[in-house]
Parts: sequence; C-alpha cells; structure tokens
Amino acid sequence: MPPADDLPPGPPLPDAVREALLAPLVDHHCHGVRRDDLGRAAFELLITEAATPAPPGTTHFDTPIGAAIRRWCAPVLDLAPHAPPAVYLARRAELGAAEVNRRLLRQAGIVAFLVDTGLNGAGLLSAAEMGRLGGAAADEIVRLERVEETVARSVGGAAEYPGALAEALAAAAARAVGLKTVIAYRYGLDFDIERPGRGAVVAAAGRRLADPKARLTDPVLLRHLLWSGVDVARQRSLPVQFHCGYGDPDIDLHRADPALLTGFIRALQPGGVPLILLHCYPFHRQAAYLASVYPHVYVDLGLALTHTAAGSAAIVDELLELVPFHKQMFSSDCYGVAETCHLGALYYRRGLARALAVRIGEGEWSAADAARVAHMIGAGNARRVYRL
Amino acid sequence: MPPADDLPPGPPLPDAVREALLAPLVDHHCHGVRRDDLGRAAFELLITEAATPAPPGTTHFDTPIGAAIRRWCAPVLDLAPHAPPAVYLARRAELGAAEVNRRLLRQAGIVAFLVDTGLNGAGLLSAAEMGRLGGAAADEIVRLERVEETVARSVGGAAEYPGALAEALAAAAARAVGLKTVIAYRYGLDFDIERPGRGAVVAAAGRRLADPKARLTDPVLLRHLLWSGVDVARQRSLPVQFHCGYGDPDIDLHRADPALLTGFIRALQPGGVPLILLHCYPFHRQAAYLASVYPHVYVDLGLALTHTAAGSAAIVDELLELVPFHKQMFSSDCYGVAETCHLGALYYRRGLARALAVRIGEGEWSAADAARVAHMIGAGNARRVYRL
Amino acid sequence: MPPADDLPPGPPLPDAVREALLAPLVDHHCHGVRRDDLGRAAFELLITEAATPAPPGTTHFDTPIGAAIRRWCAPVLDLAPHAPPAVYLARRAELGAAEVNRRLLRQAGIVAFLVDTGLNGAGLLSAAEMGRLGGAAADEIVRLERVEETVARSVGGAAEYPGALAEALAAAAARAVGLKTVIAYRYGLDFDIERPGRGAVVAAAGRRLADPKARLTDPVLLRHLLWSGVDVARQRSLPVQFHCGYGDPDIDLHRADPALLTGFIRALQPGGVPLILLHCYPFHRQAAYLASVYPHVYVDLGLALTHTAAGSAAIVDELLELVPFHKQMFSSDCYGVAETCHLGALYYRRGLARALAVRIGEGEWSAADAARVAHMIGAGNARRVYRL
Repeated sequence: MPPADDLPPGPPLPDAVREALLAPLVDHHCHGVRRDDLGRAAFELLITEAATPAPPGTTHFDTPIGAAIRRWCAPVLDLAPHAPPAVYLARRAELGAAEVNRRLLRQAGIVAFLVDTGLNGAGLLSAAEMGRLGGAAADEIVRLERVEETVARSVGGAAEYPGALAEALAAAAARAVGLKTVIAYRYGLDFDIERPGRGAVVAAAGRRLADPKARLTDPVLLRHLLWSGVDVARQRSLPVQFHCGYGDPDIDLHRADPALLTGFIRALQPGGVPLILLHCYPFHRQAAYLASVYPHVYVDLGLALTHTAAGSAAIVDELLELVPFHKQMFSSDCYGVAETCHLGALYYRRGLARALAVRIGEGEWSAADAARVAHMIGAGNARRVYRL
Repeated sequence: MPPADDLPPGPPLPDAVREALLAPLVDHHCHGVRRDDLGRAAFELLITEAATPAPPGTTHFDTPIGAAIRRWCAPVLDLAPHAPPAVYLARRAELGAAEVNRRLLRQAGIVAFLVDTGLNGAGLLSAAEMGRLGGAAADEIVRLERVEETVARSVGGAAEYPGALAEALAAAAARAVGLKTVIAYRYGLDFDIERPGRGAVVAAAGRRLADPKARLTDPVLLRHLLWSGVDVARQRSLPVQFHCGYGDPDIDLHRADPALLTGFIRALQPGGVPLILLHCYPFHRQAAYLASVYPHVYVDLGLALTHTAAGSAAIVDELLELVPFHKQMFSSDCYGVAETCHLGALYYRRGLARALAVRIGEGEWSAADAARVAHMIGAGNARRVYRL
Repeated sequence: MPPADDLPPGPPLPDAVREALLAPLVDHHCHGVRRDDLGRAAFELLITEAATPAPPGTTHFDTPIGAAIRRWCAPVLDLAPHAPPAVYLARRAELGAAEVNRRLLRQAGIVAFLVDTGLNGAGLLSAAEMGRLGGAAADEIVRLERVEETVARSVGGAAEYPGALAEALAAAAARAVGLKTVIAYRYGLDFDIERPGRGAVVAAAGRRLADPKARLTDPVLLRHLLWSGVDVARQRSLPVQFHCGYGDPDIDLHRADPALLTGFIRALQPGGVPLILLHCYPFHRQAAYLASVYPHVYVDLGLALTHTAAGSAAIVDELLELVPFHKQMFSSDCYGVAETCHLGALYYRRGLARALAVRIGEGEWSAADAARVAHMIGAGNARRVYRL
C-alpha cells in the first residue's frame, strides 16, 4: 500500500476518491529489474533511455527522473528527500539489491505485474520473482520478436520457418495473458499492413537464416510475425501490446506515432483482437483519439510518466482530454531498477489525483464518478481486457 | 443568453470581460440536429466520433463528453447535475426532442448558425429550423463533396461533368455564405496541389460515372472539385472551410495535419480566398502557426472543445499561444444532438474565460483588451470574414 | 540587470532561486536589431513571422507578441503598461532607435550575445554593436548558407566550388564560436543524410553557378554544405545550430520536425559534434527526447517564447518534461527590433520561474537544485558547449 502522502498537496479529496487512487494497481506492462547490486555507471544507464553515459561533467541524475529518484525513492531507503546521488547510491549498496527491490516494489502498491519477458537475461528478476518481491500476482506477456529469435536460431530450414514460428507462438501464448510487439523499433509503425504470402515469407526466411543471430529487421518477416501473432491472439482471446512513441535511441520517433497504425487497426476491427498502445508520448493525444473511435483500441502512458516525473501531470491531463474511461490502463513500464516501478505508480497516482481534484473542484465530475474512473484505469480495465 | 454560472469558478472577471464572454456567439460551423426522439443506442452513437457501440459492458457515456452532458445538459432539462445516463435519457424522452432542442440551442447563446448542410437528411433540422429553435439567424455553408454527388448522379456524360459541376457549385454558392471541403476524409490533406487538366478530369469522370453512387475518393476529381470550389469562392468572395484533424474513424489522423496544406495555402495567397481550418486537434498549434503567417488563413477548434469537455481549457490555451486575435473563430460543430451545441458554446466560453482571467490576473492583458478579444473571437471575426 | 518584477506573481521564491533566475543570461542565438527609426508598417512586419501586412482592418499588434510589447516594453520606454500601439510607436520615435535599443537590450540582462550574422545588412547592428549597446560580450555564429552565397558569387568555376567552399567555411569559422544551418527552410529536415560525392557536387555546382544569386535550394549542394560545415565544426570543436520548427512562412512546418534529423544525429554521434536544435515549436517535446537520448544534442526554445508571450509558460513546461538539465539553453532569437530580445529574456525567466516555483512548492525539487538548474540553462550550458 503506498503512503497517502504520495498524493499531491491541495484541498482534501473525497474519501472514496482517495481510496480509489491508493487502491492496488494492475501494472499491465513492465519488465524485470536487476537482481544484483549496481555501480554508479550501471545505475545511471538504467535511469535513462540513452544508451551512453552522460557527457563529461554531467550526469543522468540531472534529469527529471534523476531528481524524482532523489525525491521519492530516497525516503523509501530511509534517506531525506533530495539526497545527493552519491549518498543515494551508497545507501542503496548498503541495503543490497534484494532489500531495495523489495521496498520499492512493495510500496508501489501493485496487485499484479504483467511482465514482458522479452528482455529477460539472467540478471533480471523473472515474472514470478517480481511478484514475490512486490507482494503481487505475476503473469507473462510474450514478446513476439523474442519468440522469432528463438525460432530463427533453431529451425532446420526456410520452408519450415512459418510452421515452426506458428508453433512457437502458440506454445508461448499458452502460458501468457497477452502478446507484445516492438515493430516500432524494428521497422516503424508505418509498415505495409498486407499479410505477406507464404512464398515471400519463405524467401525472406532463407535470407534470415543465413545470419539468424542478427536482429530481425526484414519488413516481410516482421509483418509475417505480427500477423502470426494476431492469429494466436485471436485464437486465445489475448490482447496485443504495441510499443508506440518515445523509447530507446534506436527508435525513429516520427515513425512511432500510433496514428500510423490506423490502417492496421481498421484491418483488425472485425476480428476484435484488442490492441493496446503503450507509452505513446508525445503522440498520446493521437492514441487517445484512436481509443475513442475504435472499439478494440486501448492506451496507456507507461514510460512517459516515469521519465517526465515532476512534469508528468500535464501528460495525464492530455490523455484524459479524449480517452474513454474504459480505454485507459495503468502501467509502470518498469525495467532494470525498481525505482522505475515506484515512480511509475507514484506519478500515475499523483497525476490522476490532480486531474480528478480539478474536475471535482470545478463541479465537472461527481466524486462517485471520479472514484469509479480511478478504479477503472488503475485496475478494472486491465482485469477485463486481460481477463485476469 | 447563457446563464452566468456557465463561466468557470475563480476571482470575478471585470464586467466588460464577463459581458463579452456571455455575449451572443456566431457559430460559424455547425450541422443540423435530429428532430426525432432517440433511443439510448442512437443517442450514444451521436455523442461519440466512433461509428460503433461501446464494447460490451461499457458505454459512450463514460467519456469526457458523456460526463459533460450529465453535468451541464441535465440542469437544462431540470435535472440535478451528474444525473445517471438512464435518468437523463428518460427525462429527454419525457420532454420530447423539440423541447429539448429548443432549450439546449437557446441556452447556448448563439446569434447566428452557419450550417453545413452536407449531412442533411430528413431526420436533421434544416438551417432555418436550427435558427428558429435557437432564436438565431441561420445561413448555409455548402459542402463541395455533396454538390459533386448530386452532379455525378445526374450528369449525362463525362464530357459534361466539368461544366455541370461548375454550374452546380455556382448555383449552390449563390445561397451560401461559405463553402466547405472534407478532402481530409476523402483523401488526406497531403493532396497534390496542382489543378488537374480537363483531359484528366474527363477521364476520371468517366470512371466515376460508372458507379456514381460510390463515395468520391478519386484524387483527380477531388482536386478538381476543390479548385472549382475555389473559383466560385473567389467570384463570390466566400471563405472555404477545411476539415482538419480529429473526426470520424474514416480519417487518417496523421494525414489531416493542417500543416500539410501549406503548399495549397501559398498557392491561394495571391487570390486572397479566406481558408478556415476547422477543429485541427491535435494539430491546433500547427493551425495557429499557419494563421499567424498567412493573411488569408483562419482557425477554430470546433469539435475539439465539445469532445474534450472538462479537459478543453488546455486546448483553448494552446491555440491562443500563437493565433492572432483577428484569426480565431468560435464554432460548436454541433451535429445530431443539441447537447453538442450547448457544450461547444459552454466550453468555448469557459476555456476563454479562464485564459483571459489568467492574462488579466498576471497583468499580461488589460481588461479592455481581453473584452475586445472575446468579442472578436466570439462573433466579430466571423462577421467580417463571412460578411454577415 | 532585469527588474525583479519581471518574475511572475506568486509565493516568494527562495533567494538563491530568485538570484539564479535574475542572473545574466548567455543568449546563444540572436540576430542584430535595426539601427534606424521605424515607421509603423516596418515595425509591424518585424514583430511577426508573417511576410505581409495584417489583413485590412487588423493589425499585427493584435497578437500575443503585440500585447506583450504593449505590456512589458512600454514601461521600459516610460509608458504605462498596455499603451496603445500608436502611443507606443510615437514614444519609440521620440526616444530614437539608439536609446530604445540601449534600454531594451540592457534591461534584458544578457551577459553575452552569440549573433547569427547571416542576416546582416547595413540596417542591422553588428555583433559588436549589439554587445556595446547591451552591455555584454558578443561573439559570432556563422550561417553556412550565407557563406555558400558568397562563394557561389565569386568562385571561378564548378570544379573549384568544393575547395573554395571549404576554404571560406574554415576562414569564417576561425572567427566564430559556432555554426548554423537553415536547411529546414531551404529543403526540410527530411534530407538524405548521405554525404554526396565530389562528382555530384561539381555537377550541381555547375547548375548553381549559372544563376549564383538565386537562393540555394539544390539538395545535393545543401547536403554538401552541411557536411562541409560538420568537417569544420569537428576540426575547431564548434557546435552546429539547426533551425527547427516554427518560423517564416517559407518553411513547411511538418518538414521542420527535429525528429526528422534522427538519422543525421546518429551519423554524427561518433564524431561528437554538438548539435543544437533551435526553437523547435511545436515539436519541442520531440527535441527534448532527442536531447535526452543522444549525448551530443542540445535544445532551446528561442523564438517560441517571444511569440507565444502570455502563453509561453506552457512551452517551457513541456520542454522541461524530458530535457536533461545539462542539455537546454536560453536564447532570445531576437531580430529586427530590440523588443524581441527583451521579451525573449523576460518570458524565459517568467516561464522558468513558474516551473521552478511549482516544483519547489510541491516538494519535487530542492531550492538548491532549482537554483543550480536555472544557472545551467541560463548560462552554464552555453558556456560549456560554446567554450566561452
């Protein structure tokens, strides 16, 4: 349970709204955090989307998320707010990764983690471990591109690739509550929406198998993978998550605008597979629009709130401009360090608290509606769509 | 006249500003509302841009506009604010559509409706009826694509198509105060700006006449239609409205960015035909930029305020960042249900009231300037550009 | 030193923060202002990005920047706030351009001007004169496209063009602290990032030299110029400024999104030449993202704050959402009239003051951190990157 003072200052919220905001959250999109103790260089690289150290004389702590860690995570480690980075990291080392992870995950107030296991290495906690440390249930989201890598490295030949992929996807999906694609990184969301024919797939697979450890960037195979994932999602009634917007530096931001998915969204409308647009910043208004007109489209802000930190309330507001209340979900997109889980939940609660306080204060919404909406976005919508 | 408490809470505005904000508005872009009583399913589809019912277990009332109807329209129907949807709809049925329309339109405080008649069917009030119920003047805006449909269904052959279209446009324009195009829906705003030659038009018309009831999507004919509309606009000194940004699900949002019109805007600059960019969300900053550098470009927010409702003030603010005061106009873009007219006017007034209160409170603007700007945006600019 | 009441109203800021906000600024991107007295028509054209007078019956004073001049610059000329335009211009003429420029530049509180001399004509103050009038140091930023014009008009033949350009760039860079490109205007930021080969450059130069006074728009020569500029920048450790976003009407706004530079940014990452994204509005969130993931990318808001004036605080907030504190810089982008310098500095200070006050008030940042960040953005980052 998060402490009540995680909510922003201001006139007191009605009790029902306050309770709804502090209620346990379903974190429908997150990753494992590192199980080991981290030196400063490694820690700094896990609190930024940059792939490189900060320029000489600067630090990744001099960012909105860096300031937020010092403000909000320091007290969880028994330090005063705004502790200097060196003090914070010394205390972190003193407590040890297991205790730090336990405290930060636990206080985030998460009731269920849906973990994208596509990034899992030995150093990251598994979904089950995340749940155990966080005092929460845990389920798996299968990353399509990860399944494909396994197939590419093991399949006998190009002709067997389509069948092996379908089988591997079905097997992976059997233990999952949802699928995810990072085609935004591997190609862009402006992909051709036509399903490629078997001949084209086998030909492309032939080229792929010549270097199966390379990153998958072939557009034919990416589209084939996506459509194969959709087949499995439809069979098992699973939603498919799309990375959209802001992220690591290997994204071309202007090609990660979720509006570019419009044609694909329309193509999937008859089948009804739920599509969940993740992060979306700075295209979250576009995402809210898509969620407002297509019945099978959902949206969250994930990563965007953690990294914009003290500025995140504006983004929460902008999504709320248009998104139907039954279409938004909470996620922390935590990864690498448990601070990202803690801050994701904290800024989600603070941003929504502020937005609801304004609406109640101006007479726009009743307290009962505000509480109901907080429950929907925080957990209810995810429970319905992922059938938890 | 709208009630004074439609303005947002806060320190009292100077009298002149308050009066300017509550003064009658020219609604330079709207549609007819349904004359008949509506069941819940029909009503829900008219309060969303979605083309489908909300997913099972959800409702289109769980949206910003749905909450706003319960908050602001319920009292106009003698209900308490935040009335549940079923109560609201029962009361609506009890009063009957004519009385509901009369109350909601009247209290919106509109002095003139400029009605896009391109969507008119038997079920929608005509421009004259909108005026009569709303206690306002009413004029017509001619939708180019609607005129073309009539021509396509009646013309004798492809060779006569260009002449018949020019004639029909001239005839329609003779009774109108402006023209409108929805090329954003039919193709996108990234159209080739060259005027197509007669040969190409006749050839395309030949294909069109093979199936004249189909929706016009041929890019050559769409461009020909647009340029033909510009000819008529120039002859009769009429402005041309462009749908931009957010709308029904048959739009590709990223192709509805008004910045894509830049080349076309430049091509029309010598002729001086006023171009009015409608809605524009989430590209309203781009629209404000265009209005700030091209003397013949105007902008409004229309639809965007009605649907973002409790979140609309931020959008009003963002347009005001750059738009010259003589370039913005009010519209409700009301359609289908009179609630959309009421809310369009209400959120326009509330958003502008808040923006002016901030500017006056911080000493940025004088009260006299604030009042003058409110009169310009609310009615003066439209009177000048449409020569009302 | 700017007067303390340039800061926005609200609870008092901690002394250290107040002092940091009022400390002298490095204006890392500006232009000369006119040395002569200006009539109303000329003045109006210098307070807008439009290239044409306001439509009949309207005035460019009816804009956010026009209201801001009347509010904030009028007192500097001994007038009451909100003076009417005619009164303002009469007083301006009475004082004379030299005195007006001295007062406005001086009160902006600038300690160093980095002047883009690419627009210099006889009527504009030189960098040295800007410094003298403003009581500040002054250095030069070399505009690549201006150097190329000189070369195109003087070089003997196409075969000598590449060598002459390289020499001229090296000579110009020798007296400069940075370079600037306006390829956003001449082509768009979606240029092919490959460096063109010598054969293609000489062939394009042949065409160029047939009409050397024409504006350079050939994409091969623009790319060659840019890469030649990068060579010089690397040799002399100079940063390269890119115009991005909003500007004069000869820009295609959607092609000025800095995200379109992503491929070019990646290509320059190994060499480490700092790239500074100027203005960026309304794509400043995209710019902040780029600055957050690429170690050699920096960003400012320049022009955007001056022209959005009373609405500028929201833009400051949006950039702060994601930009690392060591990656943002102040600039006024002043040009033509000294009012633009005064307002650029004023709205920068007001916007940042408000953002810091909110962060301190909500307990997000310590006062010490807020003061430190204000010093970094206002001057420290520019001193480091330009090695002042």
